Amino acid sequence: MKKLTYGMVGGGPGAFIGDAHRRSIAVDGCAELAAGCFSRTPEKSAQTGAELGLDPERCYASYEEMAKAEAAREDGIDFVVIVTPNVSHHPIAKAFLEAGIHVSCDKPLCLTNEEAEELVQLAKDKDLLFLVTYTYMGHVTAKQAREYIKAGKLGKVRAVMAEYPQGWLAFEGENGGKQGEWRTDPKQSGGVNCLGDLGTHIENAVATMTGLKIRRLLAKLDVVVPGRVLDDNDYVMVEFDNGATGMFWSSQIAIGHDNSLRVRIYGTEGSIEWFQEDCEKITIIEKDGTMIERHRGNGGIEPDAARYGHLPSGHPEGWFEAMGNLYHSFAECLQAKKAGTFTPDMVDFPTVEDGAEGVKFVHCCLESTKNGNIWVEM
Amino acid sequence: MKKLTYGMVGGGPGAFIGDAHRRSIAVDGCAELAAGCFSRTPEKSAQTGAELGLDPERCYASYEEMAKAEAAREDGIDFVVIVTPNVSHHPIAKAFLEAGIHVSCDKPLCLTNEEAEELVQLAKDKDLLFLVTYTYMGHVTAKQAREYIKAGKLGKVRAVMAEYPQGWLAFEGENGGKQGEWRTDPKQSGGVNCLGDLGTHIENAVATMTGLKIRRLLAKLDVVVPGRVLDDNDYVMVEFDNGATGMFWSSQIAIGHDNSLRVRIYGTEGSIEWFQEDCEKITIIEKDGTMIERHRGNGGIEPDAARYGHLPSGHPEGWFEAMGNLYHSFAECLQAKKAGTFTPDMVDFPTVEDGAEGVKFVHCCLESTKNGNIWVEM
Amino acid sequence: MKKLTYGMVGGGPGAFIGDAHRRSIAVDGCAELAAGCFSRTPEKSAQTGAELGLDPERCYASYEEMAKAEAAREDGIDFVVIVTPNVSHHPIAKAFLEAGIHVSCDKPLCLTNEEAEELVQLAKDKDLLFLVTYTYMGHVTAKQAREYIKAGKLGKVRAVMAEYPQGWLAFEGENGGKQGEWRTDPKQSGGVNCLGDLGTHIENAVATMTGLKIRRLLAKLDVVVPGRVLDDNDYVMVEFDNGATGMFWSSQIAIGHDNSLRVRIYGTEGSIEWFQEDCEKITIIEKDGTMIERHRGNGGIEPDAARYGHLPSGHPEGWFEAMGNLYHSFAECLQAKKAGTFTPDMVDFPTVEDGAEGVKFVHCCLESTKNGNIWVEM
Amino acid sequence: MKKLTYGMVGGGPGAFIGDAHRRSIAVDGCAELAAGCFSRTPEKSAQTGAELGLDPERCYASYEEMAKAEAAREDGIDFVVIVTPNVSHHPIAKAFLEAGIHVSCDKPLCLTNEEAEELVQLAKDKDLLFLVTYTYMGHVTAKQAREYIKAGKLGKVRAVMAEYPQGWLAFEGENGGKQGEWRTDPKQSGGVNCLGDLGTHIENAVATMTGLKIRRLLAKLDVVVPGRVLDDNDYVMVEFDNGATGMFWSSQIAIGHDNSLRVRIYGTEGSIEWFQEDCEKITIIEKDGTMIERHRGNGGIEPDAARYGHLPSGHPEGWFEAMGNLYHSFAECLQAKKAGTFTPDMVDFPTVEDGAEGVKFVHCCLESTKNGNIWVEM
Repeated sequence: MKKLTYGMVGGGPGAFIGDAHRRSIAVDGCAELAAGCFSRTPEKSAQTGAELGLDPERCYASYEEMAKAEAAREDGIDFVVIVTPNVSHHPIAKAFLEAGIHVSCDKPLCLTNEEAEELVQLAKDKDLLFLVTYTYMGHVTAKQAREYIKAGKLGKVRAVMAEYPQGWLAFEGENGGKQGEWRTDPKQSGGVNCLGDLGTHIENAVATMTGLKIRRLLAKLDVVVPGRVLDDNDYVMVEFDNGATGMFWSSQIAIGHDNSLRVRIYGTEGSIEWFQEDCEKITIIEKDGTMIERHRGNGGIEPDAARYGHLPSGHPEGWFEAMGNLYHSFAECLQAKKAGTFTPDMVDFPTVEDGAEGVKFVHCCLESTKNGNIWVEM
Repeated sequence: MKKLTYGMVGGGPGAFIGDAHRRSIAVDGCAELAAGCFSRTPEKSAQTGAELGLDPERCYASYEEMAKAEAAREDGIDFVVIVTPNVSHHPIAKAFLEAGIHVSCDKPLCLTNEEAEELVQLAKDKDLLFLVTYTYMGHVTAKQAREYIKAGKLGKVRAVMAEYPQGWLAFEGENGGKQGEWRTDPKQSGGVNCLGDLGTHIENAVATMTGLKIRRLLAKLDVVVPGRVLDDNDYVMVEFDNGATGMFWSSQIAIGHDNSLRVRIYGTEGSIEWFQEDCEKITIIEKDGTMIERHRGNGGIEPDAARYGHLPSGHPEGWFEAMGNLYHSFAECLQAKKAGTFTPDMVDFPTVEDGAEGVKFVHCCLESTKNGNIWVEM
Repeated sequence: MKKLTYGMVGGGPGAFIGDAHRRSIAVDGCAELAAGCFSRTPEKSAQTGAELGLDPERCYASYEEMAKAEAAREDGIDFVVIVTPNVSHHPIAKAFLEAGIHVSCDKPLCLTNEEAEELVQLAKDKDLLFLVTYTYMGHVTAKQAREYIKAGKLGKVRAVMAEYPQGWLAFEGENGGKQGEWRTDPKQSGGVNCLGDLGTHIENAVATMTGLKIRRLLAKLDVVVPGRVLDDNDYVMVEFDNGATGMFWSSQIAIGHDNSLRVRIYGTEGSIEWFQEDCEKITIIEKDGTMIERHRGNGGIEPDAARYGHLPSGHPEGWFEAMGNLYHSFAECLQAKKAGTFTPDMVDFPTVEDGAEGVKFVHCCLESTKNGNIWVEM
Repeated sequence: MKKLTYGMVGGGPGAFIGDAHRRSIAVDGCAELAAGCFSRTPEKSAQTGAELGLDPERCYASYEEMAKAEAAREDGIDFVVIVTPNVSHHPIAKAFLEAGIHVSCDKPLCLTNEEAEELVQLAKDKDLLFLVTYTYMGHVTAKQAREYIKAGKLGKVRAVMAEYPQGWLAFEGENGGKQGEWRTDPKQSGGVNCLGDLGTHIENAVATMTGLKIRRLLAKLDVVVPGRVLDDNDYVMVEFDNGATGMFWSSQIAIGHDNSLRVRIYGTEGSIEWFQEDCEKITIIEKDGTMIERHRGNGGIEPDAARYGHLPSGHPEGWFEAMGNLYHSFAECLQAKKAGTFTPDMVDFPTVEDGAEGVKFVHCCLESTKNGNIWVEM
């Protein structure tokens, strides 16, 4: 089986997330970088390409050029990885889809529901796979939560408490460097900062783990740090289609929290706690209160979660491996497409539809906030 | 200095909370039980009195009789401890205040704002001390949170995440025994179950630690378990007078949580996390992210908190000692009253005014819920 | 059933442990203080007695006088509590035993094996009960470890890792105040400091939980802090009678440890971890690696452990309650003696025989150390 | 700068550790696999080479052939990675050193002190770099421990408690699959099982973090599980050259422990706790007892540790990244060698000298055990 190749848009000098995607794909080993448009400045793009050992003719000055050229090559990339600021996700993804190239795109998928629907439709029409890199759903333990609930072991889900606090944007007069600058700039990030960056991870994690859809929500997106334009602390009350309820909190002003995505799910037969910073374990509480800690690699992990682990338990895997696991399933599906053996149930990664749900979530929250924190149907 | 004596109303055979108050007072050593009306059934009251070694003539058949008789005795009780279901707090407290006897009453203080205001006024008019036993504020570490914030070390408080989940009422067809029965019975508990039992602890803990007042709130009190009439899972969004915001969650359906009151406070200069089940420590995060764990008994605890500790650090103190600490300050004030040295700044316990705030909080939450989860001014 | 009364020797002004015993007995409620010889200085003894509300004629100038006088009174004390420095445990205990009074004595029991054997024999001859207050074995969770192992659920014990580090004597030129002064003084503490104070708790905890006896040991008792005469950091390798092995570590120089008695027991069918500072829980690992956290008050706690709990789970109990539980069983047995219903299987507290084992342990460790860390049969 | 290439000996079908090295090098990105002799069975070797996309002519049937052929190629590998059972480390390493090829070899380095000395000398004579892959010293937090102590912040080290328990070989009649089979087979693993696999990690971690050398030791290597020939539970008392002491415990029978390497270091000015399974943090306790938790990626991490991190704090890195960090420094040094800019202070990885210390440690422990657990000078 020939290894897949991929191209990257974004991820130039100093960009954190592009480097992170490259390392994640490398640790999984499912694909090799073969092309790129790493920066809007051609010289920087070429420089990054050279550092990464790319063929100079496959370092492009624009993504449009790249989409066309790669589509035309016999050995063209199998998929593109889009790691640019939010505002450009849509046009870039569209260009590659139209060129017939599979897409992996960072979250949030794009800025508007219209853009999202267009991408969903385009991927469908072109029969292309589309991965939206909600990294955390790649963790074996996150998959374990999903499998455990899917198997009915939690009973009916009644309540979900989910939060994603960080502290890096807590300080007046600071904007968290390059990362923070575009995130807090309405032009580059869309109409939200914290909710787009963190809140969408909550929405996706809860949807993935529980399988529930949000029926309606009531949101309060706040700008806390003086001088900022976009939200940096967000509360959302939710009601799910099965009658369960929940509260989501995302924040960038919570000093002491590095990257604290935490999901707690309470059912009629037990509960689950999952914490991203301690991603090698999951806590399961059974009906009689027995509190069990399960580790990746241990017995008791469901096969559809366990199969993503590489190392024995107690040999920590982390963020790169989680992201790598998303690409692993994506690559498996792409290889199956090539081999003509693909079936939709093979998809074990967040898709463009999941990405579109995230965009819808953001817009419902904005609408609720604008109207004084009222309930909005989703 | 002669030891104080107290009487108890409630706390008869099988009652958990009366026994707990008695042990708490004993471990502190500030007062001795001398009288009681332990049950509405005179035989049961007499039996409990006998087991506790009381003089039979000070075991009363009714609280009214007890209030009168004890007020008339030369060696009458210094204070009464009221540990009955919520519905009777008000008449009993009123009877003892009118008899000129200081009062300690379990929370929530009473059922209506009118009742609460009457008790506040009566205590003032009679110049009597009134302790409302929000147990958890007796913990050295809870006091440390308050002192740390009061000293300005957290800067301006921006966000508060507080929760109090339990799991004991999660099951359909079960009501948690004697405790659960009256709590889920509207007639005995007032118009709320979970919010009165747990939510008021959150409100008091946050008010005590931060010194902030709630300006307005938006609540969603839900009945989750089929067959129940009163709330068992509650979400409350709050805005404080200084502009800070927060979310409170109280629940009795959260399997796996024993008694998980947790308060996290985020300021401009750092943050604090306090967890009742791990009450011997407090986590303080400084502005630069340095995460410090402080233990009761260690250096670094503010004197006004540290002075309540009995044992060296690492020798766990718990619930009885926390409750005992409330009585400790209450007794110090009563002794000072007797000695003519009392000043209001000596009060380091939750008062009838704090109890009245709790009642107001409950009613605002009920109003918000009834009106579709709208903002209600407090 | 009439409440028992007790007298105390030691526990005068500023003494921590006497106060701690008094509060522990109070929180349990099994007995009342009625007499005392609180200090070798009669004035101080009388002063403490007065503060505690004692009858002045039952505040004694010497323990010898107290033993005689109380034995002669119709309403004499039911038992004595000895909370003096180690060196005087033996003569005091002997005096009260000879006077026919039951004894509770702090650990270590005494200084020499001969003294210990004499006390064992005397208690036997006089048919008196003798509690040695190894506090930590009063914890419900410690009892749970014992019951779990006794029931065979751990299989055959193979290895025991136990440690008790503290940091309060880590500093050159400091001796930890009054407490530290007598402990590090050979004349008052006997021939050991750290091993007597902490190592004996390890020995007792392991013996109690596992039911195993040490067959032989190899010890290395070190004096680490310059200027000190007695050991402050001790390592002991042990072999048990069933072939299991273990390592014990006790230390007073381990900065950061408050009072960190931790016992880990590994069997053929699972393992157990118990930590005194987190005494409300016990971690049980089953054969397949399933890691279960059990809380006092939860289901899954064996009845013979659970019955000592007072509060629902999540309402922390601590050191006073653990010590109180020792007195609870002691008092139950004393009451049964009075009632003529006592049977030896009622004893659920550390006895003079357990205390004698601790003394033997100390002397074997001293002998091993003196001879260059060789194996010594126990 | 051209990427380095490497070859691998071992790591064929089903081998865990070879795959782990390949992923670790990939996530770091410092080198590419170009040759291999993956199995002693030529067909298996060729199969693995094909799966990994290697040029078939660089898939060798024997390591001797590989060493010669690669040394002869203009584009020959820059270094070899040896991931075979212990017994063959020495001949393979020797062959590549003699061929002038830099070596990375799994630990323990080899079986005898003579072998170890030969490799040390050979590397020196040939001026070749030699990495021994003590994985855990690649963690940023492990480096932080080293830098903190090196800077004198812990004062003089007084005591070290280090342990490495696992539970995978706890069961009679089971040998932990392929991994366990060769480890418990004296012919393949050398004269020790648990001590070689785990104990050597302890020795290296403590030496690396503290900079101390063991002066003498007293060991007790036990065979616990019936039917086994080699040790599976080991205790070692140590004395260091500065007078500090310590205890090491390594075990494969400790049910519930996945891979629990833990190092606690106590100095005159504070202490440190580091736990491999929670490798993103380090706990530092200052002289006054202040307990600080530092996370990789946070402020407060020394630059020589921090520079190895890839992701922001709270985005967990793990085992692959730790191993990758060893290769990162190894590759930097190799590139510097090529560029003529290498200086010995650039070496930030465990070397052949460190590996030789590990072999010496094993033999001292064996000698101590054989002679009844006596002190042996190291």
